[in-house]
Amino acid sequence: MVKTPRIPRNTMNDHSLEWAQKRREYLTEQTGTELPHTGHFSIDPEALPGNIENFIGVVQMPVGIAGPLQVNGEYANGLFHVPLATTEGTLVASYSRGMRVINECGGVNTTVVEQFMQRAPAFIFANAREAREFGKWVEEHFFEIKAAAETTTSIGKLEHIMQWSVSKTRYLRFNYTTGDAAGQNMVGKATLAACEWIVANYPEHCEYLLSGNMDTDKKHSHLNMLHSRGKRVIAEIVLKKDVLKKIMKVDTKMLARATVLANTGALMAGAAYNGPHSANGIASLFIATGQDEANVVESHAGLLSHELLDNGDFYLSVTLPSLIVATYGGGTGLPTQKECLELMGCYGTGKANKFAEIVAATVLAGDISLACAVIGGHWVSSHDKFGRNRD
Amino acid sequence: MVKTPRIPRNTMNDHSLEWAQKRREYLTEQTGTELPHTGHFSIDPEALPGNIENFIGVVQMPVGIAGPLQVNGEYANGLFHVPLATTEGTLVASYSRGMRVINECGGVNTTVVEQFMQRAPAFIFANAREAREFGKWVEEHFFEIKAAAETTTSIGKLEHIMQWSVSKTRYLRFNYTTGDAAGQNMVGKATLAACEWIVANYPEHCEYLLSGNMDTDKKHSHLNMLHSRGKRVIAEIVLKKDVLKKIMKVDTKMLARATVLANTGALMAGAAYNGPHSANGIASLFIATGQDEANVVESHAGLLSHELLDNGDFYLSVTLPSLIVATYGGGTGLPTQKECLELMGCYGTGKANKFAEIVAATVLAGDISLACAVIGGHWVSSHDKFGRNRD
Amino acid sequence: MVKTPRIPRNTMNDHSLEWAQKRREYLTEQTGTELPHTGHFSIDPEALPGNIENFIGVVQMPVGIAGPLQVNGEYANGLFHVPLATTEGTLVASYSRGMRVINECGGVNTTVVEQFMQRAPAFIFANAREAREFGKWVEEHFFEIKAAAETTTSIGKLEHIMQWSVSKTRYLRFNYTTGDAAGQNMVGKATLAACEWIVANYPEHCEYLLSGNMDTDKKHSHLNMLHSRGKRVIAEIVLKKDVLKKIMKVDTKMLARATVLANTGALMAGAAYNGPHSANGIASLFIATGQDEANVVESHAGLLSHELLDNGDFYLSVTLPSLIVATYGGGTGLPTQKECLELMGCYGTGKANKFAEIVAATVLAGDISLACAVIGGHWVSSHDKFGRNRD
Amino acid sequence: MVKTPRIPRNTMNDHSLEWAQKRREYLTEQTGTELPHTGHFSIDPEALPGNIENFIGVVQMPVGIAGPLQVNGEYANGLFHVPLATTEGTLVASYSRGMRVINECGGVNTTVVEQFMQRAPAFIFANAREAREFGKWVEEHFFEIKAAAETTTSIGKLEHIMQWSVSKTRYLRFNYTTGDAAGQNMVGKATLAACEWIVANYPEHCEYLLSGNMDTDKKHSHLNMLHSRGKRVIAEIVLKKDVLKKIMKVDTKMLARATVLANTGALMAGAAYNGPHSANGIASLFIATGQDEANVVESHAGLLSHELLDNGDFYLSVTLPSLIVATYGGGTGLPTQKECLELMGCYGTGKANKFAEIVAATVLAGDISLACAVIGGHWVSSHDKFGRNRD
Repeated sequence: MVKTPRIPRNTMNDHSLEWAQKRREYLTEQTGTELPHTGHFSIDPEALPGNIENFIGVVQMPVGIAGPLQVNGEYANGLFHVPLATTEGTLVASYSRGMRVINECGGVNTTVVEQFMQRAPAFIFANAREAREFGKWVEEHFFEIKAAAETTTSIGKLEHIMQWSVSKTRYLRFNYTTGDAAGQNMVGKATLAACEWIVANYPEHCEYLLSGNMDTDKKHSHLNMLHSRGKRVIAEIVLKKDVLKKIMKVDTKMLARATVLANTGALMAGAAYNGPHSANGIASLFIATGQDEANVVESHAGLLSHELLDNGDFYLSVTLPSLIVATYGGGTGLPTQKECLELMGCYGTGKANKFAEIVAATVLAGDISLACAVIGGHWVSSHDKFGRNRD
Repeated sequence: MVKTPRIPRNTMNDHSLEWAQKRREYLTEQTGTELPHTGHFSIDPEALPGNIENFIGVVQMPVGIAGPLQVNGEYANGLFHVPLATTEGTLVASYSRGMRVINECGGVNTTVVEQFMQRAPAFIFANAREAREFGKWVEEHFFEIKAAAETTTSIGKLEHIMQWSVSKTRYLRFNYTTGDAAGQNMVGKATLAACEWIVANYPEHCEYLLSGNMDTDKKHSHLNMLHSRGKRVIAEIVLKKDVLKKIMKVDTKMLARATVLANTGALMAGAAYNGPHSANGIASLFIATGQDEANVVESHAGLLSHELLDNGDFYLSVTLPSLIVATYGGGTGLPTQKECLELMGCYGTGKANKFAEIVAATVLAGDISLACAVIGGHWVSSHDKFGRNRD
Repeated sequence: MVKTPRIPRNTMNDHSLEWAQKRREYLTEQTGTELPHTGHFSIDPEALPGNIENFIGVVQMPVGIAGPLQVNGEYANGLFHVPLATTEGTLVASYSRGMRVINECGGVNTTVVEQFMQRAPAFIFANAREAREFGKWVEEHFFEIKAAAETTTSIGKLEHIMQWSVSKTRYLRFNYTTGDAAGQNMVGKATLAACEWIVANYPEHCEYLLSGNMDTDKKHSHLNMLHSRGKRVIAEIVLKKDVLKKIMKVDTKMLARATVLANTGALMAGAAYNGPHSANGIASLFIATGQDEANVVESHAGLLSHELLDNGDFYLSVTLPSLIVATYGGGTGLPTQKECLELMGCYGTGKANKFAEIVAATVLAGDISLACAVIGGHWVSSHDKFGRNRD
Repeated sequence: MVKTPRIPRNTMNDHSLEWAQKRREYLTEQTGTELPHTGHFSIDPEALPGNIENFIGVVQMPVGIAGPLQVNGEYANGLFHVPLATTEGTLVASYSRGMRVINECGGVNTTVVEQFMQRAPAFIFANAREAREFGKWVEEHFFEIKAAAETTTSIGKLEHIMQWSVSKTRYLRFNYTTGDAAGQNMVGKATLAACEWIVANYPEHCEYLLSGNMDTDKKHSHLNMLHSRGKRVIAEIVLKKDVLKKIMKVDTKMLARATVLANTGALMAGAAYNGPHSANGIASLFIATGQDEANVVESHAGLLSHELLDNGDFYLSVTLPSLIVATYGGGTGLPTQKECLELMGCYGTGKANKFAEIVAATVLAGDISLACAVIGGHWVSSHDKFGRNRD
């Protein structure tokens, strides 16, 4: 398709408007594609050196407002308008409907249980016994390792190191708290420093790989389901029988049966989430607010729990074990993303737990809405109503 | 935070500029947040009824160009510039570096193996035997069920139905081909029609839930790893020992050892992908091109395979079993997204396989780059070099 | 420990009493261990050539009788005494208690849904496209492949072949029905013949490994949970509220809550079974009846499902997707094992489904008993009561 | 089948020869089945009160001797004859062949890395926040909880408690060391005492279930793969290229390729073990030595690792994360089982690690043998040669 690549590599990090335009012109010349919309933006690319290379413009992704949503959290308290960036019709409408149900039932109670971010090096030895002995030494020298790691960061704190012996390898998983940052880069640097300290101080020779894939960064894993990567957040509500009947035309007893069936399906399928669709709300909120867009894969894992109460009401909760969010750094400071965070009062330090609570509450709203829609049989028709043109 | 929600629900689908502004003004009034950048866009919101509700504006997400990337596919053939929408610094640079290695090694060979999209209803009976008998009936009436399903679509073809008995439930999984559309909505409608036909024609009473979660829509699952949801695509390359040494400063023997270690880590962690980071490239390409942004959770699953050859070269391949992509419908027709697809000659019908090949090749580029970076120890430092401001 | 190994390898298959004694004497001489009990048996070792090599005697494992157990199956119908071989105190008592509950509730309804046994070769090619093309060829030549496979067996029938492309490998999974045999060996031979036919007839060169581990033989796998290896059997019962109260001192509402909790725990743990302990009953029945003792690992996988009914009764079912059983061949014909099968009228051809139903019903009995014991708090104490001396 | 069950329940624990005979007579009367072999035994049933109820006799399972096997462990050191109880022809021969290879390569190096046994209660609260606060309290009161647990045992030591919040439940997993006992019952009692102490001392009301299925007792789970239930044991060897060629007719390069293919198959299948067949050797050794026969399901999980060395030799290791073994208590003291343990010098306290090393080395022997057999194509034929009569 392209004849001669001509953009010099050393200009990759030039974020001037001039170079953005040069690159677009080059692409147009090479591919015949005009890029007027991509080249149309109000953000200042010179402010983006930490976010992108070879900048040519922006994707304009539509944002709709869902809610408001009543959150009764420890950090998020009140009614929130939730900005969802999506190109999928009915998504905003569906989440909004769930939020309406939630509000009429008094809101979602949210709880942040814990937070960790990991880097997981692997140390390789001549045999299994050496690997085991190394593991003991690491345990005994935890505080020195912690000190070495924390020389690289004023925010990250090394909380504990998990260890696994396999063959002649010792897999470590460094668990940090990282304040209001997601922290992947922070813990990468810290763990590198820790590993270098270990190599320098361990009495025997040892070599390591900075990641042995037990992090597990940028992928869902059962390990992350068990040992939170990001925040472990729980959103709970008691859905009133009458409200559900009125708004969703669904009986709670029916909902209980359907939830059990779907739960069994998820278990048999080996699914990362046993509810309807955590990923939709998370992806849309992540994009709108400048989160690392790939982290939806870790974050969408979860457990939906329910209980049909004696009075016919319906307890429902979602537990997200690995919700990775940040309220400063990364993409959060970009103009539109910052606006979206500010809409919810979630921009800047000290806001990550608040934002995590809103995300979890949003997921619950979406699951209420879709679960009822599947039961009510109006799931397909709601896509039609809003004229969704995607097949 | 918000005092009185005031935007009437029945205006949700009004996409006029006027209502977009009214909504922004309302939000500003309620939250004190000005939305100038979100309100700045060149796209025509009136053209968005199928993509969003309660439209307020856009997120401007930076796009960088990676590549070019030599793809030797059956559909994609040539050098492609790959637009990546991201807010993560170093990502574009890292993928570009992998693409440079690829080009010097002759390009990536790509193969689309198969394609399916599913909807998975659950039929509930009085006991296990009735469920089993129902299953036989479904098998015997496959062609009538197929006919009923296909009344709703000219594109979707029902290929086969998988079945599972659990307790007194019969879980079905309808597998369709869906042309160049992702097809979730298409198969939803078709399966609804099929289920209604079944209920009307099955000699005994039966009831169903349109999704019993065996789809498994919008979540990673082991089932999707086995039985493709979307396209099963494989990208392969033989990395030349010398090229890797020159560009990445990495020896192939070292790379082989590291790959084995990372593979074991992924296996022990129960990870959805055993390579470094499929999700980054997929998420960025999906956002740039108007794919359903949540489908990265299904799409990022995969298997990285390698072989150290006798001459020291290194065979590497990535198999993505559930890559869900579309080249028309949904968000693909939005202005910036369409431009990004056009850049690669991938907009419109007949282009989905081509696009899938480019995505898989891009994932391979990213994994080559990150794997080598982890080994070379310059992984953390590359984040620093490009001034990444996210912790 | 041993000075000089002295038993010649070529006597390995001599099953005479004389050689059994020579081997014991040799062991005693080498290790100082007398083997009077191991050397005490009533079975005729000369009849064992197909079951053991280097025979020295027998393990005497205690057998207790549980039940009787009312089974309302399609093959097993009536009250059955169930022989359990175990060294774990309280196990027989616990299963018996569950069976008493079952009988008072009218018995267990059992359903055999389907049966398959697999061998899964992997074919290796130069690249992914060749592997894909090979897959199509296999589909097109299914009936010839089936004919080739079935030349080796009058019982086994090749039903279908599942296929997966990964990298440049095509994994096949041959699915057979195998009558009343477990069939691992039968399908091994048949698949070998099929593969040889393929290699001889495929127009291009191809090579294969007889097992690419997708069988998955002698290990639990998610794949086997989905696609039955052995029989898929379901056991169901409606537990009467009053009976449970009387015998187990447990309220059904309490039981429902506990079952949900345990189900969530199993889901989070990534467990092969979400009920209390399928493996105990299966292992004990397998050993008593001469099943392949290792197959408990595949067979113990399953799904426990429940429903609290409006009248307070409790529907409970267990679905065992991969129950591997045989009623002739292998160890089933050994004297004590045959007696145990005959006790249940399950020895010989035409009895495998009957036996499978009894196994599933037994598992359900054990789970009822243990689930109630955990709730009632008498789980630990029941171990004490029967003087269990194992810690 | 049975007319009137007549054996009184209160005789269940009468282990006299007289009652054993009465029960057999009753069974013969009810079912027409004579039980001469089952009734033939040399063990003293009066010594079995802790092992069985409703005793009727024994299963005589054939025992063959595999080996000898050179183990270079920290506890097991020397040549060991390994008693395998099985009814599967070729199994003893196959393991013996692997042991021969091992011996010619200098023996297996074995390493016991760690040991834990668990009981995992679930505490239920009104909401997620209460559950989280409870978790903190448990952490703060660890030493008092430990003291309460250890009042019930002089051997078990509570090492640490893992915790997970899901919905309004707090799942705990108590990890103990249990000396040379497997310890399931020991930790059950200890955890019950700990839970009772917690309920009595926690300032708020709380209720619990003694097992929330996170143990995960008597089932394979991913959790047990990560966090050892039983012993984590590793067996390693460097297979000499020439030895493998001579005895197994297999080239190490070929073996490396096949191992990679099988590993990928296992990963895709979601298998509990990525090697050929850990379960066979474990089941046979467990039955021969009086281990809890159901624990093979936890114990068979594992990771096979390999590395083709520069000189053409082949490093191979097996890591068994959850090998549950005991050398006293339970069935280990039964006459034949005790003899089998004594054969290896493994009976009694202080021998569990030694026995664990022999088990792991045996698994490695079996995998070497089967892996080579699959490659060499003589896998099916070896079943034939020894006249295996099981299909």
